[in-house]
Amino acid sequence: MSDPVIDLNADLGEGFGRWRLTDDEALLEVVTSANVACGFHAGDPSTMRRVCELAAERGVRIGAQVSYRDLAGFGRRAMDVPSDELADEIAYQIGALQVFARSAGSWVCYVKPHGALYNRAVGDEEQAAAVVAGVVRAGGALPVLGLGGSALHRAAEKAGLPVVAEAFADRAYTASGTLVPRSEHGAVVTSPETVVERSLDIARDGVVTALSGERIAVAARSLCLHGDTPGAARLAVRVRGSLQAAGVRLEPFA
Amino acid sequence: MSDPVIDLNADLGEGFGRWRLTDDEALLEVVTSANVACGFHAGDPSTMRRVCELAAERGVRIGAQVSYRDLAGFGRRAMDVPSDELADEIAYQIGALQVFARSAGSWVCYVKPHGALYNRAVGDEEQAAAVVAGVVRAGGALPVLGLGGSALHRAAEKAGLPVVAEAFADRAYTASGTLVPRSEHGAVVTSPETVVERSLDIARDGVVTALSGERIAVAARSLCLHGDTPGAARLAVRVRGSLQAAGVRLEPFA
Amino acid sequence: MSDPVIDLNADLGEGFGRWRLTDDEALLEVVTSANVACGFHAGDPSTMRRVCELAAERGVRIGAQVSYRDLAGFGRRAMDVPSDELADEIAYQIGALQVFARSAGSWVCYVKPHGALYNRAVGDEEQAAAVVAGVVRAGGALPVLGLGGSALHRAAEKAGLPVVAEAFADRAYTASGTLVPRSEHGAVVTSPETVVERSLDIARDGVVTALSGERIAVAARSLCLHGDTPGAARLAVRVRGSLQAAGVRLEPFA
Amino acid sequence: MSDPVIDLNADLGEGFGRWRLTDDEALLEVVTSANVACGFHAGDPSTMRRVCELAAERGVRIGAQVSYRDLAGFGRRAMDVPSDELADEIAYQIGALQVFARSAGSWVCYVKPHGALYNRAVGDEEQAAAVVAGVVRAGGALPVLGLGGSALHRAAEKAGLPVVAEAFADRAYTASGTLVPRSEHGAVVTSPETVVERSLDIARDGVVTALSGERIAVAARSLCLHGDTPGAARLAVRVRGSLQAAGVRLEPFA
Repeated sequence: MSDPVIDLNADLGEGFGRWRLTDDEALLEVVTSANVACGFHAGDPSTMRRVCELAAERGVRIGAQVSYRDLAGFGRRAMDVPSDELADEIAYQIGALQVFARSAGSWVCYVKPHGALYNRAVGDEEQAAAVVAGVVRAGGALPVLGLGGSALHRAAEKAGLPVVAEAFADRAYTASGTLVPRSEHGAVVTSPETVVERSLDIARDGVVTALSGERIAVAARSLCLHGDTPGAARLAVRVRGSLQAAGVRLEPFA
Repeated sequence: MSDPVIDLNADLGEGFGRWRLTDDEALLEVVTSANVACGFHAGDPSTMRRVCELAAERGVRIGAQVSYRDLAGFGRRAMDVPSDELADEIAYQIGALQVFARSAGSWVCYVKPHGALYNRAVGDEEQAAAVVAGVVRAGGALPVLGLGGSALHRAAEKAGLPVVAEAFADRAYTASGTLVPRSEHGAVVTSPETVVERSLDIARDGVVTALSGERIAVAARSLCLHGDTPGAARLAVRVRGSLQAAGVRLEPFA
Repeated sequence: MSDPVIDLNADLGEGFGRWRLTDDEALLEVVTSANVACGFHAGDPSTMRRVCELAAERGVRIGAQVSYRDLAGFGRRAMDVPSDELADEIAYQIGALQVFARSAGSWVCYVKPHGALYNRAVGDEEQAAAVVAGVVRAGGALPVLGLGGSALHRAAEKAGLPVVAEAFADRAYTASGTLVPRSEHGAVVTSPETVVERSLDIARDGVVTALSGERIAVAARSLCLHGDTPGAARLAVRVRGSLQAAGVRLEPFA
Repeated sequence: MSDPVIDLNADLGEGFGRWRLTDDEALLEVVTSANVACGFHAGDPSTMRRVCELAAERGVRIGAQVSYRDLAGFGRRAMDVPSDELADEIAYQIGALQVFARSAGSWVCYVKPHGALYNRAVGDEEQAAAVVAGVVRAGGALPVLGLGGSALHRAAEKAGLPVVAEAFADRAYTASGTLVPRSEHGAVVTSPETVVERSLDIARDGVVTALSGERIAVAARSLCLHGDTPGAARLAVRVRGSLQAAGVRLEPFA
């Protein structure tokens, strides 16, 4: 039997101009895939370039973290964007990131929607299809990183794009394998010990303990780490260390 | 002796969202090179895609019309942008346009700065070098379209980029070959007949009549037509017709 | 019995920077109330000032046309903005317009939501309440112009704000008095003659012919004219003339 | 002889949406005047409201920190904005802040330009006049806080607006009383002890030690504290304590 293998992804470059949010340097020592903000919810051109350079130096894969055009809301406010417009906005963001990935000697390897667009593309077939249309428009048949079983993944498969499923060690799951909505009690796992333990469950055994206490199967080629909270980088380091200690190979999917 | 040859360029896609400015369809029947706005002074993603598609269908070359980040001022307000930031902003715009040019079956063939950035890069060595650094960062050694003898062209040549000089049939020239500033009387030629005549002078004979009455040499591989004023598209059609009637070959430089 | 009386309102100042949309000068000769864009979907500060000055000169009332923060989508894309944020964005816009209304010797007399926010506030109690909270935060207990019977009007009445109902001569109504959605066939009345006739029906008799053919009652103190389509200003002039010829008094509600 | 008196001002509310910069709560315990960002370089509506509420609770005066429209550059990139446009942009910002100041039970008491606009208005008579025109347009004859002897203060006095001079304890002065440009060595005083000492010199004795070693007179009714660097809030607390211990009365100017 082969060793278990997992990718670690996190959102990076989520500053804008004078503002910083994510500790990009620290997280790039941990992750194998960097979801780089492309300017629509965060990410000015110079930050994009710098993150791409740092990622390329470390062999971290670069992904386009695409979003609604909403700096004021950090892309966290769902928007009814017509499909064609949304597809074009996605393509625009991927193209912009592409130059910085290439000038750093790397390339854009995958696409992952951010915030409200991520959530909406889980169930909204129309917006999911628009995101995928944007990825296709941008060229290169890039893999789409997201929730397994989501509308986004169905749309991507329909369009012939590779899909990559991710799981969250710091989010509660229902017994049927969906995420517990953030508005509900217990939706976010805050204990570092529990996050580490759940990371191991997901990466090594492909299971997670649901809120109801059952152990359920969760297939994930990538584990999403959060980088925008205090202590996030430290916790990420710890998760990485525990996975390595347990013999899990950390390897980008792309 | 070979036929005289010239390229016709114009700014296109200068709407944003609900707003339109340029008559893109009409102008694309006239020009051989389209300076497509890239979202910083004008040009939403869907407009960029549509203009690229129309241009590609007609064999019109696509260029990136890069600008300061200034939607409110339409890129007409000079800004003291630090060099590195400016270079990254330029690269970002080129990359974004690249996806729409490619998805239309074409590619970005050249770069031309817009508005205040164009004017500033005529004499400001630092900003000129930053624009060129951005073009280099975007890759592909793209030609830089601008005023012959400008700081922009000197910087481009220093960086090993091809330069293409353009002339203006509707702008007055001084005896030393520079443009008369817009703030001065007589800076803009408004008579359609005179514009047509000056177009012929430039394209066929490489000369232009300066404000002082002298005929001076002006070397230009491209003639810039304006598309954002009433009657602009009609005048452009007339210039094109007159050039063709006079045996001038219309041919993109890129 | 007293003469019938109606207010005519239209969206004005919907340009941004270099871009124009509405023929503000022409429409200000027609309307009695001007819904002035406040910078979030359209309306740069200089346009706001100019429209306020022209309105004040003509005795046209100034209203704040408040919107989602969405220049790229012209405020036509519904957004899930948290209530507190939305209320603050509304208040911000009203305050900004207030300085230009006052410097023109007038004042902001009412508030009307724009585009997707208008549509959403018809039925979404939460966003309706947020808009009203923003109006209250801005002070002065301003009347809220909108659809009679809407969630917006209910929220305004609950907060003690005056409400003013408007009707549309160029939109089809269902037999139950609601607007036929734009996506349905026949939703927009395009014949100028019919628009004029329906204007008279609404203003003089308080009735409108529904799509089903029935004559239904529609109580409206204001009639909304559209100004952003070709021929809009001419049609508005004609509506005004017909109303006056029929003895309808044109009078602002505020 | 009366006690020496000084106002302490700092830039506050310089976050935007998800991003934070200044420790508003801590600084509001220190300053007597809060320069609140108004949305053009920083400061979303909800942040503006919250800072106004906190300031009002503590009796801290609210001033409008007006800026170029430049979120990406944090208002630190000088822009050639035409005077009329600039005046309107200033008025817009003041009006927007006004609603939050009023809803918090206070009012906008003064205006201070931010970043590149502040620096430019020191010597550029045209932009200085435009800023002042914007203040006048916003109404209320608000005092203008800035460098004594600046073009901004001359323009304000010409327009009949009160002027208030400020000094910087953490910036080096030339022997002629101007600030040493940030690009020069020694421009910024980094030792907390020295900053405290210079604060006392300015507030108590109206003098400052120039870079050349001379003691020069500096008349200032307000002392500007910086709040956007690590340790800034702690240093501000220390400056305040030292001034109080030395018998300097801390009192807003407005």
